Amino acid sequence: MGRFPTVMTRRWTKWLGVTAIVLLMTACAGHGAHSRHGELPSWNDGPSRQAIVAFVQAVTDADSPDFVEPEERIAVFDNDGTLWSEQPLYFQVMFALDRVKAMAPAHPEWARRQPYKAAIAGDQATLAKSGQAGLMKIVGVTHTNMSVGDFTKSVTEWANEARHPRFNQRYVDMTYAPMRELLTYLRARDFKTYIVSGGEVEFMRAWAPAAYGIPPEQIIGTTFVTTFNDQKGTPVLWRQGKLEFNDDGPGKPVAIQRYIGRRPILAFGNSDGDLQMLQWTVAGEGRRFAGLVHHTDAQREWAYDRESKIGRLDKALDEATSKGWTVVDMQTEWNQVYSFEKTQ
Amino acid sequence: MGRFPTVMTRRWTKWLGVTAIVLLMTACAGHGAHSRHGELPSWNDGPSRQAIVAFVQAVTDADSPDFVEPEERIAVFDNDGTLWSEQPLYFQVMFALDRVKAMAPAHPEWARRQPYKAAIAGDQATLAKSGQAGLMKIVGVTHTNMSVGDFTKSVTEWANEARHPRFNQRYVDMTYAPMRELLTYLRARDFKTYIVSGGEVEFMRAWAPAAYGIPPEQIIGTTFVTTFNDQKGTPVLWRQGKLEFNDDGPGKPVAIQRYIGRRPILAFGNSDGDLQMLQWTVAGEGRRFAGLVHHTDAQREWAYDRESKIGRLDKALDEATSKGWTVVDMQTEWNQVYSFEKTQ
Repeated sequence: MGRFPTVMTRRWTKWLGVTAIVLLMTACAGHGAHSRHGELPSWNDGPSRQAIVAFVQAVTDADSPDFVEPEERIAVFDNDGTLWSEQPLYFQVMFALDRVKAMAPAHPEWARRQPYKAAIAGDQATLAKSGQAGLMKIVGVTHTNMSVGDFTKSVTEWANEARHPRFNQRYVDMTYAPMRELLTYLRARDFKTYIVSGGEVEFMRAWAPAAYGIPPEQIIGTTFVTTFNDQKGTPVLWRQGKLEFNDDGPGKPVAIQRYIGRRPILAFGNSDGDLQMLQWTVAGEGRRFAGLVHHTDAQREWAYDRESKIGRLDKALDEATSKGWTVVDMQTEWNQVYSFEKTQ
Repeated sequence: MGRFPTVMTRRWTKWLGVTAIVLLMTACAGHGAHSRHGELPSWNDGPSRQAIVAFVQAVTDADSPDFVEPEERIAVFDNDGTLWSEQPLYFQVMFALDRVKAMAPAHPEWARRQPYKAAIAGDQATLAKSGQAGLMKIVGVTHTNMSVGDFTKSVTEWANEARHPRFNQRYVDMTYAPMRELLTYLRARDFKTYIVSGGEVEFMRAWAPAAYGIPPEQIIGTTFVTTFNDQKGTPVLWRQGKLEFNDDGPGKPVAIQRYIGRRPILAFGNSDGDLQMLQWTVAGEGRRFAGLVHHTDAQREWAYDRESKIGRLDKALDEATSKGWTVVDMQTEWNQVYSFEKTQ
């Protein structure tokens, strides 16, 4: 049921009690899809939910002037901060730091060398001082100079085991329930849902298909140069220590064209890195949808926007306001953020 | 019915006549799918057709030890020489040469400058002398420094109009009927069919979806660096004059992983540029299919392999022989090459 205001009269409590019984009866009768929140139960009946439903009805109703053929119903979603959380650091960076610790026994020299020493010790201050160059070294040793198969294996192990320091939940369980419902809602109406993320593509493919129901061929991300090598007679794909394509900012519409070859009719992001993807989407002919997840809930998730180093939302927030894009107020519009809240 | 040997007895003619009547009756009764050649009518009942059918039955029968889940039924096809012809030059080069002529009135300086002058005059000898550098100049002016939308428009116009010098048919009508049937046959069994070609991706996307029933997002090719530009307030994707990725040879398995993220279970090519794609496909666990189209029919199409500059088939032919891959003898195994043969 989400959270209730702390000031609640008896009358409201009683009313909610009646609602709960009705909901329970409805669910038991197997009519879950027709419950209060329909197929988007974690979304309150606010402006964002209304805008989504109105858009989807308009483009899927064959009698609507805005009707879009099923094969053109392309929907693209950023991942970090849009489909799952991204604090205190992008979860891919958390993976890299965890991996340095896991790999440390095989690399005794790291005990005396930065930034590895700081990563192993969890020394955030020293790590921060090593800056972008230090981070690149850590990403390098944990992500490259290995086969695609071995990298995928290391991510899968981490995804099954590692837990977030604040919530003590697996990272893969820190996806947003309302956004997973939205993906399902769109697919039920013949949308093809894609991830278009600054995250590395094979990092996401290791866990995102199970988490979101999005197959590997619909996951687009940042890539490393990869080569076709012969390993004792067996062909392997080898991840080189060189960035190939940075799927962020203006890279996103470029990647959308390269991988999909069609312009999306719906795009969802949460930061300035998604601005060009949203611009490209709405610049197409016909009705389009641009959405931003606005992180406004410090209690259940995090609250940040214009001043944040991770997931800064500044220019895109201004453009959303001036263009009338949908900005989801996480605090008031989502009655549930993570699925694990249910059982807490 | 394809072509008949020139030496044909009366008895054969009579037998073929009876067959034709039976086929006609079957078709009229709406049982086309159960006709002599089933769903692959342009394939004679030879070793290639048998190998294809046996493979597809094995991986789609739920009781088979070789069963493959529908979402893993990835099939990849080279384009030039595998799905359509590639002589006397790759059709994309024919497009570029045609485009130089079409663009010439706006470029009077080309009348005095090579290799443009030779391209406009159709002077093959001088063009050949200009070599790879000359070809790159011609590809550059016809393919780059324009928006994706404008390039697509130029290809669409060409595809609708231009005709092949030998057959006087549109290039888009020079796709192979047996291969189009194979694509349909596979998709009817839940295979996802992809093009993985050295051709430029937007060149193919302009006509290949209609020709093969393959959507833009399943077409993988060579790419130019593309940037997200602002054109008087409207975002455009701009094709830069710089090669980004050459989707040929060892690039093919790399692109397959990057775009699809799964290993194919079936791959079809026709030249040494497809060798690594075939190797990567068959190196996967479980039953796999690797096929080569062998150009053996100088009369209906072209005959070439080890010595050809276009579509050289040498190392891959040796490997196919030693590994038992399927090599399609175009002359004996296809009773029809192009659909336009029917009406000639």
